[in-house]
Parts: sequence; structure tokens; C-alpha cells
Amino acid sequence: MKLFKAEEYIDQLSIDSVIFGYKNKELKVLVAKVHFEGDFWSLPGGFIYKEEGTDLAAARILEERTGLRDIFLEQYRVFGQEGRSNNVLFENLLNVPKSDFFTKEDFKWLSQRFVSIAYYALVEIDRVKLSKGVFDEKVEWVDYKKLPNLIMDHSLMVEHALETLRLNFDRKLIGFNLLPETFTMRELKELYEAVYDKPFARNNFQKKMLDLNVLERLEKKYTGAANKAPYLYRFKH
Amino acid sequence: MKLFKAEEYIDQLSIDSVIFGYKNKELKVLVAKVHFEGDFWSLPGGFIYKEEGTDLAAARILEERTGLRDIFLEQYRVFGQEGRSNNVLFENLLNVPKSDFFTKEDFKWLSQRFVSIAYYALVEIDRVKLSKGVFDEKVEWVDYKKLPNLIMDHSLMVEHALETLRLNFDRKLIGFNLLPETFTMRELKELYEAVYDKPFARNNFQKKMLDLNVLERLEKKYTGAANKAPYLYRFKH
Repeated sequence: MKLFKAEEYIDQLSIDSVIFGYKNKELKVLVAKVHFEGDFWSLPGGFIYKEEGTDLAAARILEERTGLRDIFLEQYRVFGQEGRSNNVLFENLLNVPKSDFFTKEDFKWLSQRFVSIAYYALVEIDRVKLSKGVFDEKVEWVDYKKLPNLIMDHSLMVEHALETLRLNFDRKLIGFNLLPETFTMRELKELYEAVYDKPFARNNFQKKMLDLNVLERLEKKYTGAANKAPYLYRFKH
Repeated sequence: MKLFKAEEYIDQLSIDSVIFGYKNKELKVLVAKVHFEGDFWSLPGGFIYKEEGTDLAAARILEERTGLRDIFLEQYRVFGQEGRSNNVLFENLLNVPKSDFFTKEDFKWLSQRFVSIAYYALVEIDRVKLSKGVFDEKVEWVDYKKLPNLIMDHSLMVEHALETLRLNFDRKLIGFNLLPETFTMRELKELYEAVYDKPFARNNFQKKMLDLNVLERLEKKYTGAANKAPYLYRFKH
């Protein structure tokens, strides 16, 4: 069963995606263990059909590799250094007999120098369902500070994606759709603390958020109990 | 004299650059009139050698097309929509007998669907010297609000580049190296007004700039004249 057809794709051009996941006040990254011998981990990535739009390709590849659909993917950078190639990985794989997806010709194609268009996203882990793609042994959420040994420049890709995520995060907040419909100021603060990996002072944080003018404070319901429940907020439309 | 060798480049991948130029309180964009019949204008762009780094390719292409060297080019986005091709331009050119740089095979290659990596820069017009490339009839600085009819999605490229330029411009200020070694607050304000296409109130602007903590105010020289010369500033190192 040969699934991979190099001739259908644009030569020397790939896509890789850094998918950050948020859960329990922690920021994780989605990585895949390549479905062969050896300890090779990579970001979910793939190739672009000759007539396929890049954004569509990024969404398709992500779904094929991880089962994730309808994610707000943002293109953030191209990694196109000279000498950027998978050859170490694929030289190893050349000797793996069970790799029935690829021929030796495919390996040669895959070992070329590649320019990669990188995307990133941030999702709430509980809302998404993973399912590994045909090329992967497994896909996993890992702590972004404890990444396994990623191939090529994939660690650098994560680093740059994190920088991009942090830059103007206020403006991205709504688009990423990370919080439940209504949430407390504390939940919002915990999200910021996970993204920036540092604590924020409660009062300053609240003031800063309210100044952004994107939050709507909901009326408290009268419960009869002592009025200690925190205010709930939602994003203005 | 056939100068163009399609087989040396990565297939279906190109680079285009939006070069903003600043002079006399105005923001301009560098465009090239393609060196053939017809009224085709484009951003300075080209292709990437199979083993060439993308940033190096962007710098090389810009120099070949415009003579500009050592420009701080920043990659900002990929334009890779499905159906993105030069075919209208090149179908026209197919009938041009004097195009001795290209063969019909080259035109076919050039008419494919292309993914383009876009770069932008901002330069002081007086500091740079243009010299048209072999493929261009001329290269020109034009008002960014009065662009000629650009091919493909090049107008959109300019629009997105301008958005990117404006986003966090404060942080880019020093890197772009746009002002003389020393400058007045007024000169700085004029630059901002050109980039954002709107006036800034003098006092607010000055306060905002000083709050950035990147400016060093120089002592005024004693000239004997009435002390009306404005303060000079320079960037802190």
C-alpha cells in the first residue's frame, strides 16, 4: 500500500504547525512520533498539492495527522534556511523494511532541502479530539518546556510561535475562542499566566483587561447565599 | 541571450517584496514596470535557487531588480491562495517577439500556480540608489495610495505589508534606521504621520515617545543666538 505520492505535491515546500493546547492552567504543544523505528518526534506537518491553497493545505494536513478540525490556524513565518533538510531522519528510515508507505524514490524526494511555511494555533484541549494520522505512531500533548527531541528546526518553530502568540495576545484572545462562553477574571488571568509563563498581579490584571474594552460583565444572579460568587464575564460581540 | 533558467529554481515558489520609502513626509512604494509590451507593474520579486536560503534569496532578488543592497527585509506573510498564477501576464508576453530572456517553456513554468513568500522593508529614499534589473523597463517610487495597476495580488501584498508595518511600529523604529543620527521630535512625528496616515497631537506624541525609553536627548550647544533651536534626539544604544 503506497499512500505517498511525491509527484502530486509542490517540490521542496512544506507546512508545519505548532498547536498550543491549554488545560488546567498549562500550555502544551502537540507533537507526533513518526511512525517508524527510532525516536523521531515532529510537529504535525506535510506537503501542499500543486493546486491547493496554503491555508487549506495547513488545515487538511492538521486533520490528517491529528484529527483536529476547524482550528483557527494562523500563518506566522517561513523557515527556509539553506541546508534545511530532513536527511538525517530519512537516511535512518531508508533501512526500515516495514515502511510500506514510501519508496526509496520518495525518501530521496523527502530528503531534499525544504522551505516550510509555519502555522500556529491555540486550542482548549478538552474541546478537541485527537486521532493519529497514518504516518504517526502517536500524537501527544506535551509540556512546551519539556519538548522531546524534535527533528530539524522544529524546536525553533515552537519558540517563534510562542513569541508570536505572546505578541499582541490581547487582540487574539477572542479569535482563539479559548474560554467558555462565560468565565471569571481569575480564569482569564490563569490563561494569561500560562501563555506568558509568569504571574500577574490581580488588581493590575483586572484593570488592564477592563481597559481593553472587550469584556462584558454579567449581572450576578440572586441566589440567597452570601454574595461571594465572583463576577462572570463574556466577550462583547 | 537566455538569462532565465527555470530549472535552477524551486518550482511554484516565489518571493515578492514591498519596499516602502520615506521622503519629504511621504510614504512611497517601490514598483517595477515589467520589461515588455503592455502596462504590467509588479512588486520586485523573483525565485529561489533550489539550495538557497529564503532570506538570502529575498536580498539577492531585491538587489538584482532594484540595485538596493543591505536593506533590513522582514518576512511577513505567505500568499498562497489556490489559483494564484501569473497566466494573464504571461499569456500576453507569449506573443512578444523581443523577449529574448525567456523561451516558451519558461513562460509555461512562470504561468504555473505560485506560492509567494512576502517581505517588506522601510528605507529612507535619499539613502538608496536604484538601478533597474534586466527584466524591468523601469523601477519607480510611487505614492502608496496611488499605486499603478499591479499584477495578481500585489496590491493586497502592499495592504498587508502596511498593516504589518503599523503594528508595533515603535519596536521597529530603530531597526529600520530611518532617521539621521540625530533628529528632532518633529521629524520623528512626521515619520509617524506618514506611516499611519494621520496627524498626531504634538504633546501627546512627545510624551508617548519619551515613555518608550529609547530616545536620548542631546544637550543644546550654546550658539549665542536666541535659544529657539529644538532639542535633538538620538536612539539609545
